[in-house]
Amino acid sequence: MTLKSFVEVQPDSHFPIQNLPYGVFRPESGSTARPGVAIGDYVLDLSVITRAGLFDGLILKGSDCFLQPNLNKFLAMGRPAWKEARATLQKLLAASEPTLRDNATLRQKALVPVEKVEMLLPAVIGDYTDFFASMHHAKNCGLIFRGPQNPINPNWFHLPIAYHGRASSIVISGTDIIRPRGQGHPTANSGPYFGPSLKLDFELEMAAIVGPGNELGRPVDVNEAADHIFGLVLMNDWSARDIQAWEYVPLGPFLGKSFGTTISPWIVTLDALEQFACDAGKQDPPPLPYLAEKTSKNYDISLEVEIKPAGNEDSCVVTRSNFKHLYWTVTQQLAHHTINGCNLRPGDLLGTGTISGPEPDSYGCLLELTWNGQKPLSLNGTARKFLEDGDEVIFTGFCKGDGFLVGFGKCSGKIVPSPR
Amino acid sequence: MTLKSFVEVQPDSHFPIQNLPYGVFRPESGSTARPGVAIGDYVLDLSVITRAGLFDGLILKGSDCFLQPNLNKFLAMGRPAWKEARATLQKLLAASEPTLRDNATLRQKALVPVEKVEMLLPAVIGDYTDFFASMHHAKNCGLIFRGPQNPINPNWFHLPIAYHGRASSIVISGTDIIRPRGQGHPTANSGPYFGPSLKLDFELEMAAIVGPGNELGRPVDVNEAADHIFGLVLMNDWSARDIQAWEYVPLGPFLGKSFGTTISPWIVTLDALEQFACDAGKQDPPPLPYLAEKTSKNYDISLEVEIKPAGNEDSCVVTRSNFKHLYWTVTQQLAHHTINGCNLRPGDLLGTGTISGPEPDSYGCLLELTWNGQKPLSLNGTARKFLEDGDEVIFTGFCKGDGFLVGFGKCSGKIVPSPR
Repeated sequence: MTLKSFVEVQPDSHFPIQNLPYGVFRPESGSTARPGVAIGDYVLDLSVITRAGLFDGLILKGSDCFLQPNLNKFLAMGRPAWKEARATLQKLLAASEPTLRDNATLRQKALVPVEKVEMLLPAVIGDYTDFFASMHHAKNCGLIFRGPQNPINPNWFHLPIAYHGRASSIVISGTDIIRPRGQGHPTANSGPYFGPSLKLDFELEMAAIVGPGNELGRPVDVNEAADHIFGLVLMNDWSARDIQAWEYVPLGPFLGKSFGTTISPWIVTLDALEQFACDAGKQDPPPLPYLAEKTSKNYDISLEVEIKPAGNEDSCVVTRSNFKHLYWTVTQQLAHHTINGCNLRPGDLLGTGTISGPEPDSYGCLLELTWNGQKPLSLNGTARKFLEDGDEVIFTGFCKGDGFLVGFGKCSGKIVPSPR
Repeated sequence: MTLKSFVEVQPDSHFPIQNLPYGVFRPESGSTARPGVAIGDYVLDLSVITRAGLFDGLILKGSDCFLQPNLNKFLAMGRPAWKEARATLQKLLAASEPTLRDNATLRQKALVPVEKVEMLLPAVIGDYTDFFASMHHAKNCGLIFRGPQNPINPNWFHLPIAYHGRASSIVISGTDIIRPRGQGHPTANSGPYFGPSLKLDFELEMAAIVGPGNELGRPVDVNEAADHIFGLVLMNDWSARDIQAWEYVPLGPFLGKSFGTTISPWIVTLDALEQFACDAGKQDPPPLPYLAEKTSKNYDISLEVEIKPAGNEDSCVVTRSNFKHLYWTVTQQLAHHTINGCNLRPGDLLGTGTISGPEPDSYGCLLELTWNGQKPLSLNGTARKFLEDGDEVIFTGFCKGDGFLVGFGKCSGKIVPSPR
């Protein structure tokens, strides 16, 4: 029989009792930030549950991890604490459990309607790394920028390529994105372009939130890497293609990316995703031993991007992709990241890179979807090569269970004009 | 007449009363971290000075900025607070001023012998960015990796190229550096190399510590950028050239750098460096308006690198360079960093990139000094292409005043073997 909560959850909700994703919120503006989990149209306030003494397991009893303004302390505690919290909360929210269900005063305090809350970044993100783990994306970028001769660099099949991203400009879903200004390639006989980006793009990504980190000099074994990952969020790695194209040789993307990166507020745990795990597919050439996994897993997470063009009431779906299209798994990404001794800290963010599928309608960014502006998209009758001011980009992602969804909610942002 | 302190300062000390660099220290192991300034062979404990009520200026009176375990709060306060603190401390430490000089109890508490203290990272570093601002370094890297046709990429002369570095692995001078393991280029007919790096290098850099940051979407004007820089430190951006060479296309350096970055503990303020400012030299082509400075300044800071080879008692100087060799100024670096709206936060670190001078004996890394291993260096009769386990690398830097030095002390680290 399917597990059910006494909290009413619509069948198309992303947040049934099977999910219980973690976020940080303020119940009202000005109040203290605190952790919560989403259940249907409510947020369960974990500081209230802590103060009521309802985390009564061996690890979490007496802990103040949910009295913090972020999840970092809980993230550092590791999988045994995460499993205990999940068990406690699934029991507490179950239809058959009277503790919270029949205590109207506590219920009133603990369950806050989601439309009233302000969601915040779930963790202090010390470092943000962005990978390049979709082969289809790597291939398309190579075809667009370098042509059909060896579109994918030879190193790509041997290691999960990545770069360090900018942590300070990571924002929560719903934050406006200010169109960046910067330099673009010189045109014939003139200097570089300078002004608002003319090729503003989204990138459909997901990102892993790191749990316990590792000490400097102590790599994480790839077969233990999953215990260092708390869960996943949706991520939009906004990109200014003209700025990026001019600046990125030889040290990689910098200002073409660092003006803003949006993440969804709810971290869906690997424990909730476990039942949607699927085979990651064979890697050829076989990875070096430090990247060879006993079990190589992806997750079957349907991803969708909609654009609501400036001035329009309705949004259009522009792509449908899936997390399972990644070539390098998140556990391989994490193990590779630490093989040189680099230390990860709780709350670090590891982006997957753009998740493109094999078909043109599953490409994960406008660069690919419009083939660098050569094939504009039609959205409700209006054409787009790249994003215009006022356009809103909305990501969703979910796994389909038997009679329920385990979803990520939305990751959205609207483009506003460059400052004068 | 030269300003003098009642604290005895040797003429070759880096820390006379003209300097007063800021750091964070523990007076003894296990005690609380607190800010201090260096004076001769002592550290002045700023928490003691605060508690004694001696910061009596308009801005700092009653402030708890020096009761913090890092400098971030003080950094955020900006130049007026920094100038006030400097004036207060120069007065308090002056030979003619009895307040501290004649109070044996307070002096005993406030002045801690530097050999007793443990130095810590001076600030929480939210993000670390590394530039590529020396033309000589850019040219040499281009010649080594791409050959004599256009060794410097066309974008280099139009913008200060940079990449995001790894903040978590920044360590304080004196911390051992564990040789990273990783992948290197495949050799003929075999897969990529995997193992301890065979081309471990130092990079002679300096780095700016950001003071007040800027809001997302609000670029800093290049002519106001100096007010966002508190001061400079020495920095060794350790690099594994074999890992870097294989991984860096197309997204830039990642594991070749992220295993460790060492900074010196004392932040020398721009106010202390002001009298060593010099003309930054003409830029051709002229920079775009957002990078065009009314006054374009560098600082005349002599830099020196010594290597103490494994098993040797003595160290050898391997290069002498100068901060003034930078093409792009630190203020241009900062303004460029924010032109796209990227936000900087107090404590952020902006590395200059390797500071190579024009002559072969002023190159800032072994890659250049040994021309990628082709011309080994002789150190006390032992040869080095790259660093070996047990080698210690020591940077120093100072400005020469009239009868005194304003220096940075040392930035050192020893290579220890990869874990088994």
